[in-house]
Parts: sequence; structure tokens; C-alpha cells
Amino acid sequence: MLEELKKIVCNANLELVRRGVVIYTWGNVSAVDRDKNVLVIKPSGVPYDNMKPEDMVVVDLATGEKVEGKWKPSSDTATHRILYNEFKEMGGIVHTHSINAVAFAQAGMDIPAVGTTHADYFYGPVPCTRPLTEKEVNEAYEENTGKVIIETIKERGYDPMAIPAILCENHGPFAWGKDADSAVYHAVVLECVAEMTMKSLILNPQTAMPQYILDKHYSRKHGPNAYYGQK
Amino acid sequence: MLEELKKIVCNANLELVRRGVVIYTWGNVSAVDRDKNVLVIKPSGVPYDNMKPEDMVVVDLATGEKVEGKWKPSSDTATHRILYNEFKEMGGIVHTHSINAVAFAQAGMDIPAVGTTHADYFYGPVPCTRPLTEKEVNEAYEENTGKVIIETIKERGYDPMAIPAILCENHGPFAWGKDADSAVYHAVVLECVAEMTMKSLILNPQTAMPQYILDKHYSRKHGPNAYYGQK
Amino acid sequence: MLEELKKIVCNANLELVRRGVVIYTWGNVSAVDRDKNVLVIKPSGVPYDNMKPEDMVVVDLATGEKVEGKWKPSSDTATHRILYNEFKEMGGIVHTHSINAVAFAQAGMDIPAVGTTHADYFYGPVPCTRPLTEKEVNEAYEENTGKVIIETIKERGYDPMAIPAILCENHGPFAWGKDADSAVYHAVVLECVAEMTMKSLILNPQTAMPQYILDKHYSRKHGPNAYYGQK
Amino acid sequence: MLEELKKIVCNANLELVRRGVVIYTWGNVSAVDRDKNVLVIKPSGVPYDNMKPEDMVVVDLATGEKVEGKWKPSSDTATHRILYNEFKEMGGIVHTHSINAVAFAQAGMDIPAVGTTHADYFYGPVPCTRPLTEKEVNEAYEENTGKVIIETIKERGYDPMAIPAILCENHGPFAWGKDADSAVYHAVVLECVAEMTMKSLILNPQTAMPQYILDKHYSRKHGPNAYYGQK
Repeated sequence: MLEELKKIVCNANLELVRRGVVIYTWGNVSAVDRDKNVLVIKPSGVPYDNMKPEDMVVVDLATGEKVEGKWKPSSDTATHRILYNEFKEMGGIVHTHSINAVAFAQAGMDIPAVGTTHADYFYGPVPCTRPLTEKEVNEAYEENTGKVIIETIKERGYDPMAIPAILCENHGPFAWGKDADSAVYHAVVLECVAEMTMKSLILNPQTAMPQYILDKHYSRKHGPNAYYGQK
Repeated sequence: MLEELKKIVCNANLELVRRGVVIYTWGNVSAVDRDKNVLVIKPSGVPYDNMKPEDMVVVDLATGEKVEGKWKPSSDTATHRILYNEFKEMGGIVHTHSINAVAFAQAGMDIPAVGTTHADYFYGPVPCTRPLTEKEVNEAYEENTGKVIIETIKERGYDPMAIPAILCENHGPFAWGKDADSAVYHAVVLECVAEMTMKSLILNPQTAMPQYILDKHYSRKHGPNAYYGQK
Repeated sequence: MLEELKKIVCNANLELVRRGVVIYTWGNVSAVDRDKNVLVIKPSGVPYDNMKPEDMVVVDLATGEKVEGKWKPSSDTATHRILYNEFKEMGGIVHTHSINAVAFAQAGMDIPAVGTTHADYFYGPVPCTRPLTEKEVNEAYEENTGKVIIETIKERGYDPMAIPAILCENHGPFAWGKDADSAVYHAVVLECVAEMTMKSLILNPQTAMPQYILDKHYSRKHGPNAYYGQK
Repeated sequence: MLEELKKIVCNANLELVRRGVVIYTWGNVSAVDRDKNVLVIKPSGVPYDNMKPEDMVVVDLATGEKVEGKWKPSSDTATHRILYNEFKEMGGIVHTHSINAVAFAQAGMDIPAVGTTHADYFYGPVPCTRPLTEKEVNEAYEENTGKVIIETIKERGYDPMAIPAILCENHGPFAWGKDADSAVYHAVVLECVAEMTMKSLILNPQTAMPQYILDKHYSRKHGPNAYYGQK
């Protein structure tokens, strides 16, 4: 089943390596089929070399059980699943350990919105979650990772599709989008923006951007008045 | 029309990717034909893979209207146009989001002239513009981006062909030259100089260079007494 | 003798270059054959281009004497040997001068465990040894390098297979594992973690991680309750 | 004449690009023929693509006049020439604008000897010259660049073959060796060491190394008691 979606997810995983945001088995991409109520995800700990669409694993969104596939799904599957169940707009989710985004996550810092590269994709700071408590870590780590992402998005009160990435403290970034390719795209942009902004903060700790530039650049690319790109 | 110039502009856009200063659809190159009073520019939001000369868009310098092309021109076209109209010496213009130049732009800082690599191409600091006002952003963002570039060059009182690049605050670099290739060259040099100088400032915040070394290196390569390179 | 192990060690050395943690002749990989009580190691100062399995050198673990090979073994052989003799679990050892790990070693600093990328492979800070004394350097430098590694591991009281790398002050990293490939893998992860953590410390000098996240991530991949990867 | 040496010099120039220490026409390599009392050097401002041995230029060491070649020699030829005339041990000289070495040069700082990677090739800090005076710059810039290198080496009182590189303040590195390949090797090592040491200084401004480790590592590779590499 879902042969086309498996191809897309497999290729999206390989794209992470080509774009330099993943080495070895680090990182994973999933995509969702809302009609069948399943997600398709990379297998756990399998190297990217020679990874094929048939290696992808299909998991039930309602139960979390494997529906199809010869491998165990990514160990982060529970995080993906809880996010898909909470946010129906998400079509693809990515997790990486890309270096500059991880640097912010380890530092426990949001990536502030200080430039138009950021504003073109993220309508506000990319938030860093609080750390999980010991109880949360020990009882259901991956599921609670998803829950703290949801908590952060709700507490900050923003539309997750307008800021399609987050940093999990001490861990690293998750990114998402309407589909797997868009999620990967956001993960790559996030890494680039993290590097730019770290360097700006080194040059000038007071680095900031007026809200109206954020508004302008985001709305050039998104929403009813977008005019970037082709129709 | 302008088949040769479209080839040049298309190749100059691809060179941005090969030199590592652009990913995805970020950045754009244009060139001008002063006889026909048009500019040729990359289409908006079209990926670089498989970009062909016939994808380039021809825009009237006087009216800003598209003259030829199957795509919408780059969303930054108005910035390019106003610069060509102001500075007749400009033959090519480039915009990128290259990481180290953006870091300075986000930090709202000039790139100071502290080394001979800089002096070989930029006869003084590469300035950072002031931020646009809310009114400027909302009324005609891209055109006003061009205007603030012109304002900065005039206020600083220098020849734009002697400092063929600028940083737009919170945004990123524009570079230019006598033609598209030269503009790309300056964009790549700018990124390299930005990295060098950021690192020098980290090592020594007092980093500076005497004016006479700036004079010497710039005049080795430029002006009537230049002696670098072949005749 | 040991044709298969020579192939593995040769390929592991070349992998260091492919992964970008070694240039020129810097760095070396060895592996051990516990039955024959020998190690197989890269020759000293021989370029990686065209390096072949038959260039590897076989050295007696008991005596340190060359058993087979047309070249002199790596100048760091005595360090490898003393580690294999002390820690019977080590199957492969790697030494590199990878830039970010060396930066910590030169700074005389542990790499603190502040993120899950670190925790996935290293169960605690990657320690930096004390500097060798003048006497230790002059009498038996490479052997004493091994001894100070052993001393550091013992003083810190940890299992070297749970933190399979160390930094030698003013010098650089050694990494190890159950075999040569695993040792190379740890050397590459170490370099990546060093870069992440340096950047986190620049962003936030107070960067830290709770012990229970370290425990959780390490035990996801290691020990009786590991659930990362395939069975 | 000198067909073999032209091949070597041409290839050494191309190696600078392959090793990532030069872009465009930046940097140059020369080598000397002491019997004929000439140097062979890259032409000025000619791109590396398609550069061929017959493009190299032969210059008289005594007079500085071109002896053979269809192009003008590198604009830095006078610097190379004065160094060859002063230091008879130099067989090859390289100049680059590699980013991390330039960062130290712009900052006006020596690269301190704080690690064994440094000590393996440079027996002490890589010095940064004083800036040239206005008179020195205006009267004979390239020749005076050579003179200030010689002045710095003499004032510091070291053997230039034991520290085969220097930083010219506000400019960038020169490196040398017994031949062109060795000079290129030192230029690449210098760039790597500059990056390591900058990062160590960021982590710990007190970074330092005992003299006896410098002595040990340098003498492992150099002098009568060297034991690194093959006979």
C-alpha cells in the first residue's frame, strides 16, 4: 500500500543527506495519509545508503501500531504521530540534528526573527521548548516530546503552519509542512537561518528586526496577498 | 530577443549556486541592455535545477512592465530597476542571502575595510543601509529597498562602482558590476570578506587597517595606475 | 596474515578522509586480533591516496615489535598498544586532528554533555586529559599518552566503552569502539558534537543538560533496554 | 626552459584550489631554480581553469626581469624574489587569502603555538608582521612586503625553515618550503591550524601549550632525531 507516498518519504529522507543536515542514521522524515489515517516513516537506525521505498514503515495514526513494513519504525515515531493527531494541517514532519539548529536547542534559546530569510518562512521566533521533566522523560519520552511541542505552540499562541519548526531543548529541531518535501525544505532553511542568526548575535548581541518587516516578508510569500513565485 | 544576454544571465544565476552563495530559489541576477532600455532577470521562485535561458524575463527599465517571458520576474525586480535607472554604470546586479554577509546585514553593521582582500574589490567599508520605515515597507517595499540603497550611497558620498556591494539592514546583500558576471564575482567576494572580517572582529574587536593600504590595494587593481592582471 | 582485518583497517582509514576528519597523513586507525594478540595499523606518514590493505602493519601487542609489513607503523602505535592491553573491550582505535575536537583539546576543556546527540554516544562529558609532564614527554611520549588516557578514565571512574573517546590536552582526540568501523564512527560523531557544543557555549555559556536526559538517550541506544535501531 | 619546474608550479597552484585555500585568481605559488638563478611563478590575474604549465612565467632572481613567458608574472613576484634572495633554503613560496589565516592577519595577531598540529610543522608562533608604513607601501609595496617578512624573521630570531609561514598584517599568509609542493602543504596546514586555534581561543582565551610539547612534536618530524614517517 501507499507505494507513491513511500517513494516520496524515502526520497525526502535522502534529500536530508544531500542537503548536509543529516549524517549516518540521524534524522527522519514522515508523511501522512489522512484518508487511511496512517503515517509513513523511515525505519529506525537504518543507514541512508541504499535505502529504498520498500524500507519505509506504515504506522496507524490512531493506535501507533505498525501496519506494514519489514523494519521497526523510527524511534521518534510517537513524536510524529502525536503531532499529526493534534495538527491536521501537517502533512510531513522532519527531525534532524543539524548543527546550528542543535546549537540553539542545546543553549535552550529561541531563534529570534532578525532577518528576512527567517521572515520568508517563519512568522516569528522559532521557539525552544522547555526541557522535559524527569517523569516525562522516563514515562513516555517520545510521546512527551510531542506533547511539549504542542504545549509550546499553544502557550505561544501561534499557527504551527506559520512557524513550521521548533527546537526541543537539549535535543534538536523538528520541522513540518504540508507534505514531506515541504517539511524537509523547512528543516534546511531552519539550519541556514540558525547559522546566520548565531553569527549576527556574535557580531551584535542587540540584533533585532521591526515587526513590520517580519509582516511584510512573510506576507510576500504566504497568505492571500502573496506575490512571490509563480501562480 | 536578447538571446545572448539571457544565456549570460541564466549562467550567472547558476554560478551563484556553484559558488555556494545561494540555495533553493534564493537570490537573483539581472543584466541590462542600455540600448533597448530593458533588464533581463531570473523568474520569481523558480528552482535553479534545469533553469534555462528561455526562462529569463525581460522587463522595461522605464515602465517596469514585462516585455517578454513566460514567467513572472523576480519579486526583487523593482529594486534592480531603480538601481539601473539611477546608476548608468551598472551592467549587472545580484541579490543573495549568503550567510556571512546576511549576518552583518542582520546585525545592522557595515563590513569594515580591514584587509587587502576587501581593499582589492571594495574601496571602503561595505555599508549597511538604515532599516526601511513602516511606511516605506508597506507602500512599495522593493522600490524603497532600491531607494534606500541609493540614499546610502549618496549620503556616504562614494562611487558605487568603487564599492560594488551594499547590505540592506535585516535583509542581505546586493552586489553589482559592469556586467552580470562581474556582479556575481563581487557577491562571492563579499561573502568571503564577510567571513574573514567577522572572524577578525572575534579575535580582535579593534581590528582596523590604515587608509594608505586601502588606497594601495584598490589602486593596484583599479584605475589608471592598476598593474594587477594582464593588459 | 590477517588479510581480512587489513582490508577493514585500510578502509576505515580512508573513511576518515571521506568523512572530512582527516587531511594528508593526519590520523590513524588500528584494529586488534585478540587471538593472535596483534594490532593492525596504518603505516606512518604514508598518504591516503592509493593506500592499500597490504600497506597496513601488524604489530605484536605484547612486545610492540613489528610482526609483518613493509612500512614502519604509525608513530602513535605505542598509544594504541597500551590502550588495547589495558582495555580488552576495545577492538578498534582512531586518532584524528579533527578541527573542533582539537579546539577543545587545545583549550584544555572537556566537551560537556549538553545535548542528546552527545548522549546518544557518550554517557557523560568527553574528558580532556591533563597535560603530560616534561619527563613523560621526553621519556616515552606515545606510551605516556596512552597512560594518561588510562589514568583519566580511571580517575573519572567510568567505563571507556560508554564514553568511547577522549581528548589529549594540546593534542587532539582518540576514539575507540568494538571494532575499527565503530571507532571511526565515534571519531566522526565526536567532531560533530564538538562543533555543536562549542556553538552552544558561544550562544549561552550556561548551557547544560539534566542527568536524566543523558540517562534516557544513552539507554535508548545502549544496554539491555535499548530500543533504537533494528534487532 | 624549465619545463619540469613549470609543470610542478602549475600543479601546485591548482592544488591550492583543490584544497580550498584559494578561489578565483587569489594566491600564487612559485618555485626556484638555484642553478639558473630564476624563479617560476603563476601569471598575474589569470584564472585557474585551464591554467597550463606553459602559462607559468620565468623571472630572473638577480634583476627581477621576465626571462620567459607570454604573461605578466604575479603582482606579488617582487615579494617572492626578495625572499628567495635572502633565504637560500627556500625552494617554493606560496601566498593565499585563506579565510582563517587572513582573519589572524587582519586582527594583527600571531597564531600562537597551542597544539601539536601546529607543533608538527611550525616550531613556535606563526608571527604577524608589523604593518608597512605609508612610505613603504607607496614606494615599493611588494618588495617592502618581502622586507618586512625578513625583518620579522630576523627580529624574532628564528630559522624560517622551522616556521615556514608568516602573516602580513592586514593582508594574509605567505608560506614556503624546500619546494613548491612543500610550500603548498604548509599553506594548507596553516589554514587548518588557524581555524583550530581561533576556536580554542574562543573557548578559552588562556589557551597555551608548554614549550616541551612544542619541542617534542616538532622534533618527532624534523631534525636528526625525527622518527615520524618512513625513511
